[in-house]
Amino acid sequence: MLKKNYHDVAEEDVTLAGSTGATIRWLITEKDGALRYAMRRFEIKPGGHIGLHNHPEEHEIYVMSGKARIFNDKGEEFIAGSGDVLFVPPNEKHGYENLVEETFTFLCVIPILEKK
Amino acid sequence: MLKKNYHDVAEEDVTLAGSTGATIRWLITEKDGALRYAMRRFEIKPGGHIGLHNHPEEHEIYVMSGKARIFNDKGEEFIAGSGDVLFVPPNEKHGYENLVEETFTFLCVIPILEKK
Repeated sequence: MLKKNYHDVAEEDVTLAGSTGATIRWLITEKDGALRYAMRRFEIKPGGHIGLHNHPEEHEIYVMSGKARIFNDKGEEFIAGSGDVLFVPPNEKHGYENLVEETFTFLCVIPILEKK
Repeated sequence: MLKKNYHDVAEEDVTLAGSTGATIRWLITEKDGALRYAMRRFEIKPGGHIGLHNHPEEHEIYVMSGKARIFNDKGEEFIAGSGDVLFVPPNEKHGYENLVEETFTFLCVIPILEKK
């Protein structure tokens, strides 16, 4: 069994697709013995966003605090807040925009896909 | 994209290994299109516990509230609270005991293994 706190994990800026005010912590990865999927913790500061992007990995998301607009490129969007759960299928475009004066915090689990 | 709130998901009692005062919600499963791993949300009420047990599935855990003792059968144990992250390897025995007068709440992601 392995234990750490999210504060022990390096906080990195999210830079993809013109993102601003967003950070990621890779909480559990292959380095911890997790071979199938990785757990990450995101923060998006007030006024921040993660730009529209996609990838082959699906997302399983749990929102812990704040409120954000989560959108795709088909005009679909949701307002998500604490206790909300999202599933983003593989390859679907998605982005996040913090709507309030509180940090938007969520966990996001992605598969560790075989590198080709 | 699929969105729900954890309140929308049925809360079931955890009954394995003599557990008391513990519930599980299966937030994201194969029914949602998640084919590789499932996200569950647990609550252990004050005085409650989940008994020592094991299985082939590893756990990726994020603690959201409360304080609990998390233990195995090798005398190893951790006190875990909000913001703590745990990785339980496949087949390792583990149990949880709520230590305080607050509900212990955590997310736990497990692989969806092929049935043999």
